[in-house]
Amino acid sequence: MLAHNDKFEVLGTDNAPGQEVRRAAGNINGLMRGDKLVGRPVDFSHGDVDAFTPTPGAFERFCEAVEAGGRQAYTEYRGSEDIRGELAKRLAAFTGAPVGAEQGTIITPGTQGALFLAVAALVDHGDKVAIVQPDYFANRKLVQFFGGQILPVRLDYLSGSTDAGLDLAQLRAAFEAGAKVFLFANPNNPTGAVYSAREIEAVAELTRAFDVTIIADQLYSRLLYRGESYTHIRAQDIPEERVVTIMGPSKTESLSGYRLGFAFGSRAVIERMEKLQAIVSLRAAGYNQAVLRTWFSEPAGWIEERIRLHQGIRDDLLDIFHAGGLRTRTPRAGSYLFPTLPPLAVNPQDFVGLLRHQASVIVTPGSEFGPHPDSIRLNFSQDHAATVAAGRRIVDMVERYSK
Amino acid sequence: MLAHNDKFEVLGTDNAPGQEVRRAAGNINGLMRGDKLVGRPVDFSHGDVDAFTPTPGAFERFCEAVEAGGRQAYTEYRGSEDIRGELAKRLAAFTGAPVGAEQGTIITPGTQGALFLAVAALVDHGDKVAIVQPDYFANRKLVQFFGGQILPVRLDYLSGSTDAGLDLAQLRAAFEAGAKVFLFANPNNPTGAVYSAREIEAVAELTRAFDVTIIADQLYSRLLYRGESYTHIRAQDIPEERVVTIMGPSKTESLSGYRLGFAFGSRAVIERMEKLQAIVSLRAAGYNQAVLRTWFSEPAGWIEERIRLHQGIRDDLLDIFHAGGLRTRTPRAGSYLFPTLPPLAVNPQDFVGLLRHQASVIVTPGSEFGPHPDSIRLNFSQDHAATVAAGRRIVDMVERYSK
Repeated sequence: MLAHNDKFEVLGTDNAPGQEVRRAAGNINGLMRGDKLVGRPVDFSHGDVDAFTPTPGAFERFCEAVEAGGRQAYTEYRGSEDIRGELAKRLAAFTGAPVGAEQGTIITPGTQGALFLAVAALVDHGDKVAIVQPDYFANRKLVQFFGGQILPVRLDYLSGSTDAGLDLAQLRAAFEAGAKVFLFANPNNPTGAVYSAREIEAVAELTRAFDVTIIADQLYSRLLYRGESYTHIRAQDIPEERVVTIMGPSKTESLSGYRLGFAFGSRAVIERMEKLQAIVSLRAAGYNQAVLRTWFSEPAGWIEERIRLHQGIRDDLLDIFHAGGLRTRTPRAGSYLFPTLPPLAVNPQDFVGLLRHQASVIVTPGSEFGPHPDSIRLNFSQDHAATVAAGRRIVDMVERYSK
Repeated sequence: MLAHNDKFEVLGTDNAPGQEVRRAAGNINGLMRGDKLVGRPVDFSHGDVDAFTPTPGAFERFCEAVEAGGRQAYTEYRGSEDIRGELAKRLAAFTGAPVGAEQGTIITPGTQGALFLAVAALVDHGDKVAIVQPDYFANRKLVQFFGGQILPVRLDYLSGSTDAGLDLAQLRAAFEAGAKVFLFANPNNPTGAVYSAREIEAVAELTRAFDVTIIADQLYSRLLYRGESYTHIRAQDIPEERVVTIMGPSKTESLSGYRLGFAFGSRAVIERMEKLQAIVSLRAAGYNQAVLRTWFSEPAGWIEERIRLHQGIRDDLLDIFHAGGLRTRTPRAGSYLFPTLPPLAVNPQDFVGLLRHQASVIVTPGSEFGPHPDSIRLNFSQDHAATVAAGRRIVDMVERYSK
């Protein structure tokens, strides 16, 4: 009955963030060195919305939408026109380039929904797509699901320069080899690297030269640390139709329970995304859409305080990892850390299992993000004290299992 | 840049329900016969959740989920385990066959989400799929999007027998021709026909004989009119792995603003659906999932009263259409009517435009549901008095534009 197994083979979710509940402990006991490390469990696979709570007013906007009734329950497939109008203005201001409210915007079920629709709109069997390694794990899966071919582009994220470390020669080679789409997250997920102005300008130049379309996942671009700068690719000298930008309030704003994303830019791509959304899920949940009214409209100082608190956690974790000998890129934005593990006496997959079983720490294996089995990803949008303690347990575990 | 146009060509949404806002009036004025027909506008393209309001307690369950925080925001991709457990018991009781809570259920963003995932799980390039004509408009689009080939099966819905009118010989021929999947809505959308026990048993027998997998869209199976009976295909003598059943609380229960659907049955299909959901939208919005706690658990008498009220509207509209000479199948369930228009002096597309422009009545063109250009579909889950008045305006319009 179930044909086309390959298509679903690449969609393994067992190691995906949030799916840990489905994993059995297996024979992990036989590998254990020493006793359990006691401490408050921390699930670094995603942010803790109980530690960093949703934007003030989000729930109230939802309640108003329920009160408004049918008008808000049944929006256009691309989402409520007036909400998209508000967001278009705010995102134009944030990114530094105009956003066409009516034709150039779509509200989706999460940024994941936007990514899925954008890739579907642009990638079909045999199409070549340039993908950064490492980068958000679903990027590869999406391209493969639609039969596209991945041309990997290396990110030398540990080089420590002011650049993110994108291998521009490899990107050019991918375009020369026929890649028609470049899909990348900026800030990078899992490393927190932010592409420099120089790098983004170079990407823009290559995009123009090779007539490529860009899908820019900017999910974490608001959570930018003190003193860092961010360059929006859509504000570069590229035809508007060549860029679709994806953002959403699930991370920095902790609104993930509402499943909201937003894509803007290329009208042709957005039009296809809406056509597809009509058969994928019709629309982002109508009442939930109203929560976006709070987005980029938070109380004064709220976002700054959130950034300050995350920076504090980042700095403490970096200190712990560096002291423990774990090479780690300093994230310039976002709430991910991607430390490299030293050579271990157990395989990386088992080490991740041991972290969970023995140290009450859940992390995402680096292999989810490309050929990076010796790394682990942490989303440190968590309770500060619990995170520091869990970071120490990770270092302790690395020492116990080092070769 | 935008290749593979064909794929999106079939996904036209301009005439889809809910998209009327995007349609321009065009040159409709030039076609108008007589003055405008005054009356309260009625949008029959979808139910009016202000006339029939959401299930009592739905909003409260949502609020509790927000209060619960991260635990409810980040569920498994297939949805909260305890909510799926509750639903498995209720759906087993409703359908008369066991539901495997852990492996055999998935919560999706609306029934549309479930349909998309189920078709994706079962249909790939070149696969043949038996599709009823008429049937829910997205069925064809979904199969075509995944490169499947449609083998149409006629529904003789105007025959007036106790059967829905499925052409079983055509269904057998489709299976003989290699159809591996049979996708159908029961009750039928747009006609409200319910397949008889005899028909469902015959479908089950063919399914067994040809080793076909069934996707049964039972979205409207709860809104069953007085004295009617319903036969669940999953309770027939078919291997459990051969049937996936799709339902949701968007229609009868007016919970469409929360975007919730539920699929249950074949474990292998559900597993694929979850893998795909992980890259399509991660999960149905976490907080929203809790609203399903009200489903099949409504206050005593609530659903019966809702059915009674819909039956009253149905009967009044049928009287009006029959008096006006519009052939219409009497729906045995659901809130759709699919009257046939007599020969008109304008083309059907323009007539639908005139209904909107001149009579403040929005309907869905029959062409959305297959080769049925001379029909229109109405969702009569609306204010009773406004619906009766709008029904009279439709008859008036038909008379004005008759050949």
